[in-house]
Amino acid sequence: MNAPEKLPLFALETWSAQQLDEVERALSRWVACPAAAPAPAGLGDAMRYAVLDGGKRLRPLLVMAACEAVDGNPAAALRSACAVELIHAYSLVHDDMPCMDNDVLRRGKPTVHVRFGEAQALLAGDALQALAFEFLTPDDGSVDAATQARLCRMLAQAAGFQGMAGGQAIDLASVGLPLTSAQLHDMHRLKTGALLQASVMMGASCGAPSQAVQAALSAYGAAVGLAFQVVDDILDVTADSATLGKTAGKDAAQQKPTFVSLMGLEGSLHYAQQLLARAHASLSELEATGLHHTAALRALADMLVNRQH
Amino acid sequence: MNAPEKLPLFALETWSAQQLDEVERALSRWVACPAAAPAPAGLGDAMRYAVLDGGKRLRPLLVMAACEAVDGNPAAALRSACAVELIHAYSLVHDDMPCMDNDVLRRGKPTVHVRFGEAQALLAGDALQALAFEFLTPDDGSVDAATQARLCRMLAQAAGFQGMAGGQAIDLASVGLPLTSAQLHDMHRLKTGALLQASVMMGASCGAPSQAVQAALSAYGAAVGLAFQVVDDILDVTADSATLGKTAGKDAAQQKPTFVSLMGLEGSLHYAQQLLARAHASLSELEATGLHHTAALRALADMLVNRQH
Repeated sequence: MNAPEKLPLFALETWSAQQLDEVERALSRWVACPAAAPAPAGLGDAMRYAVLDGGKRLRPLLVMAACEAVDGNPAAALRSACAVELIHAYSLVHDDMPCMDNDVLRRGKPTVHVRFGEAQALLAGDALQALAFEFLTPDDGSVDAATQARLCRMLAQAAGFQGMAGGQAIDLASVGLPLTSAQLHDMHRLKTGALLQASVMMGASCGAPSQAVQAALSAYGAAVGLAFQVVDDILDVTADSATLGKTAGKDAAQQKPTFVSLMGLEGSLHYAQQLLARAHASLSELEATGLHHTAALRALADMLVNRQH
Repeated sequence: MNAPEKLPLFALETWSAQQLDEVERALSRWVACPAAAPAPAGLGDAMRYAVLDGGKRLRPLLVMAACEAVDGNPAAALRSACAVELIHAYSLVHDDMPCMDNDVLRRGKPTVHVRFGEAQALLAGDALQALAFEFLTPDDGSVDAATQARLCRMLAQAAGFQGMAGGQAIDLASVGLPLTSAQLHDMHRLKTGALLQASVMMGASCGAPSQAVQAALSAYGAAVGLAFQVVDDILDVTADSATLGKTAGKDAAQQKPTFVSLMGLEGSLHYAQQLLARAHASLSELEATGLHHTAALRALADMLVNRQH
């Protein structure tokens, strides 16, 4: 009865490679080594180690895809993509420290504090957060002031106590405690969801999205943000450390509440697919507003849910 | 031969009390407890403990005084004053942690990690930094977008690898090493000078300062920023912990290079007065541009150099 679905002609790998080529070059050029004044006393090395040559770069890809969907300013998108990745990278550096998760392996390499010492890791994380806001406020006329201010506001909220840092505080406080489904959702909406959703919304904010477009992208961002965490919890159980590039099985070992501990493996797999359907439905709403460059957002949602690491 | 100097009718204490009344109320209202969504899981308590009811608030006062000198937007100044204080407060929280200075006393109270644990202290510092940028980007029309973007840029640069965080990295790397005068100046220009100077320049940026005004205030900011550190080094030797509200004599105990270890106590006292004279000279240049509301900036420089704690 339904019209046949359009063939998925979009090649995510090719698109991603093009986007990431730009993002990686920007990060490499801008992180702590401006020709004029490189970061002093080894700080730049620690910052670059934390950011360059690693990670799936999901957040930058979400920024770029959302900007593409609204036909926004590419210069603003590139800076936003780098900025969200810096915030993500700093959070990993601090999260891995002995007083937090005490992890020694990240992306298959020693964590920053193992390699550079705790004090330098602390400073590198701090400096990366500041750098994110520096990236968003260039003085070269490439991004208008209203967009700069809006992007800073969105990133600050997503990173702070009502976003990522708040979620981590809940995470800290809930180790070993049984959480309800609502509490677990709340924690992840803040801890990982806020920055993923902000990536989508910052990409959109590089253009001039209507209210309807913002609503659709916000729903998409919320769905993929949550799906990402559900899949993360699944992979912690089903994948090995070598595939993950980080220590597997940690959640259970640390008695952390997860979607798998709450709804079981089957239930979690099913939930992830539900969230993926929700993301796709949001993109259909987006298309109903007349915007049709949604292929990258669709493919990213698929990839994010069906990833193996 | 000279005309008699104007009598110093300006009452710094009265002026400061007025400014700080506003700043303290804003901090108390805005730090991690918006009615809508307070910070979760004790994070807000740690953030508020780190910021409220303590500190000399030198940086906020410099912001307010500089804004007054250029007749800038008071709403922008208040937000900037709070933002620089948040950055200062977060840096103290992280700096006190065991992997850094390992200090247990600050402003006469247990440090944040002693009171709330290391993980919460780490998160509280991170969240305070993000909050600073949230403060600078209100959505209520009180500060125009160009000013918001400019303030974010200035604060990010002052806090990051080319500012405070960079200076702390040099500090870390130089414990136990003999520094030259140039190296010591470099370290402090970044570690404490950058944020103090940024406080002055952000206050100025709440208005529309001419190049000449910016140059004069930049020179003033550099002088007071450096003087502040020289006096800090002096007080570490001459004051006791109770007066300081933090552990005295730490620099020598940790074999940290200081202005006192480099140029002696007498030399340092003399140098502080030289820097004070330089600050005053910069303000005379400012007055030569036609701006005469410099009394607060003058008095702050005096207070900062002649303080006993």
